[in-house]
Amino acid sequence: MQTTIIYLAEIIGIFAFAVSGAMLAAEKNLDIFGILVLGVVTAFGGGVVRDLLLGITPPAMFNNYIFLLLAALSSCLVFLLYRQRRLARRLTVYLRRRHIKLDISGLVNFFDAIGLGAFSVSGVNVALDNGFADNPLLAITVGVITGIGGGMLRDLLNGEIPSVLRKNVYALAAILGAGSYYLLMHSALPSLAAVLISCGLTIALRLAATVFRWHLPRPDPEKKI
Amino acid sequence: MQTTIIYLAEIIGIFAFAVSGAMLAAEKNLDIFGILVLGVVTAFGGGVVRDLLLGITPPAMFNNYIFLLLAALSSCLVFLLYRQRRLARRLTVYLRRRHIKLDISGLVNFFDAIGLGAFSVSGVNVALDNGFADNPLLAITVGVITGIGGGMLRDLLNGEIPSVLRKNVYALAAILGAGSYYLLMHSALPSLAAVLISCGLTIALRLAATVFRWHLPRPDPEKKI
Amino acid sequence: MQTTIIYLAEIIGIFAFAVSGAMLAAEKNLDIFGILVLGVVTAFGGGVVRDLLLGITPPAMFNNYIFLLLAALSSCLVFLLYRQRRLARRLTVYLRRRHIKLDISGLVNFFDAIGLGAFSVSGVNVALDNGFADNPLLAITVGVITGIGGGMLRDLLNGEIPSVLRKNVYALAAILGAGSYYLLMHSALPSLAAVLISCGLTIALRLAATVFRWHLPRPDPEKKI
Repeated sequence: MQTTIIYLAEIIGIFAFAVSGAMLAAEKNLDIFGILVLGVVTAFGGGVVRDLLLGITPPAMFNNYIFLLLAALSSCLVFLLYRQRRLARRLTVYLRRRHIKLDISGLVNFFDAIGLGAFSVSGVNVALDNGFADNPLLAITVGVITGIGGGMLRDLLNGEIPSVLRKNVYALAAILGAGSYYLLMHSALPSLAAVLISCGLTIALRLAATVFRWHLPRPDPEKKI
Repeated sequence: MQTTIIYLAEIIGIFAFAVSGAMLAAEKNLDIFGILVLGVVTAFGGGVVRDLLLGITPPAMFNNYIFLLLAALSSCLVFLLYRQRRLARRLTVYLRRRHIKLDISGLVNFFDAIGLGAFSVSGVNVALDNGFADNPLLAITVGVITGIGGGMLRDLLNGEIPSVLRKNVYALAAILGAGSYYLLMHSALPSLAAVLISCGLTIALRLAATVFRWHLPRPDPEKKI
Repeated sequence: MQTTIIYLAEIIGIFAFAVSGAMLAAEKNLDIFGILVLGVVTAFGGGVVRDLLLGITPPAMFNNYIFLLLAALSSCLVFLLYRQRRLARRLTVYLRRRHIKLDISGLVNFFDAIGLGAFSVSGVNVALDNGFADNPLLAITVGVITGIGGGMLRDLLNGEIPSVLRKNVYALAAILGAGSYYLLMHSALPSLAAVLISCGLTIALRLAATVFRWHLPRPDPEKKI
């Protein structure tokens, strides 16, 4: 049950991360291969770094063809929608007539929050499963890296400073999720509850931070970023 | 015989990749050490990432002093030619009088195609030799990474978006070469033929793409990149 | 005794590297988390890459809570001083009245030189301790990477070309320090002397290069960088 929920949330996360990477690449007019690479790297980059740090070689992504196919197809979908702008516009008009308004970036942000929650928890889980349960620093760090690493690689490959270093409360949400999951897994709570609480905490904090425009303090609060 | 051909092609590839990295660094007027690092990273970066993914530590490059010396000397040669522009100009004039016209970037591109073919094939070979013959996704991916990884690191260190993400059909050539090699090695064909066909495919596709300016489709085909 | 000296020098190095990373992040007005990450990555990035290359997983930094706490606190200190500019100014005035003139960047540079010396030597030490004493290329390379890797990651995350690729004699100092330490450890000299000589060589060369503005040769010596 607990693994099923993590599994489901991971699927949403891979889709959301792949879409966010592919969209950034499409905005820069990279070719179909560039879009595919950015999508796949964003979806799996954090997990690969985690596996390298934990000494799990080859990284787990190479044994999960379904996840990889999902990331590749999501990226291709983004390419097609960018390529067929006319089709995309028609889709928007069609939905608007049915009083459904598409807020793409809001939608991606929503999925992305779910992915962040799922990845931060599943990253800690991998550390626990591989015998690092007695090293909270390591377990929580690889959880956070699983959650935010893909996005950091995406931004680096795009020649930008990783947005996670300045985006509203993004990393803090991952830290709280990974930390609470580590603590709850060492408590008497059933592991299903630990997953739901930690995932929920990350997702709720991330969404609230977007809606209410929460930011972590900066050296010069008045300067725009 | 088969390993001899891969070995020879790898030597050409290391020379070509080191020169391409060193030239980019020299254009940015980095110092001799920066030029050396960029040359060596471009030549070996893909292989190091491959070895880390496969759990081969320390990476193979640290046991091959001849290859490393070759990359370092190639980089120093680039530095010297950039430093002694007068000497470089004299060399050009001397050759022109003998009706030989130097097309540097074309030459580098030609060597680079040979390197791409050699590295993509040798990368798959390393995966097969280390017991990953039953995982085509892993074997082909590390082949492609061996071929294109060095160039990606070179561009990242230079503060640029990796050109492989938009250069004409560059990565596709690596994928076809690595993929066909993996397939042919599982066929009844002698391995020498597998090397020659796969290497040749990559090199031919890459050179043809440069000559005929082939590109993979982009979201907005009319926008310049 | 020898390990105590390396330990002490490493503490200074971690402080200096964390401060240099956090200052760069604060200049770009990243948020407190971004400043923390940049500080920690600069202090430990070189060591993590070294450990991955040597196959030491998880990397040593995850077993050293004191070092990590030191890096985190140093980064927070930088944030506070940038945030409380008024307090920082008062501190400067207070010191100036006592005829003490603060030269922040000079101070950071001084600490940074000590860190470079300590890290280059300790990096070689890790290679020797893990059975790679017969591979000078590997041992010296990971020593240099331990010294300069954190700064390179810092610059990459900040969207800049790594300054070590053009900064006056920075990497050469690390190479000489790591190389001489490797040689001296294979001589009859007591290891304490090896540490002191190699560390001292790196620090002296680095400081002299800053004071006398030494540079390695560049392709176009007249062009500014």
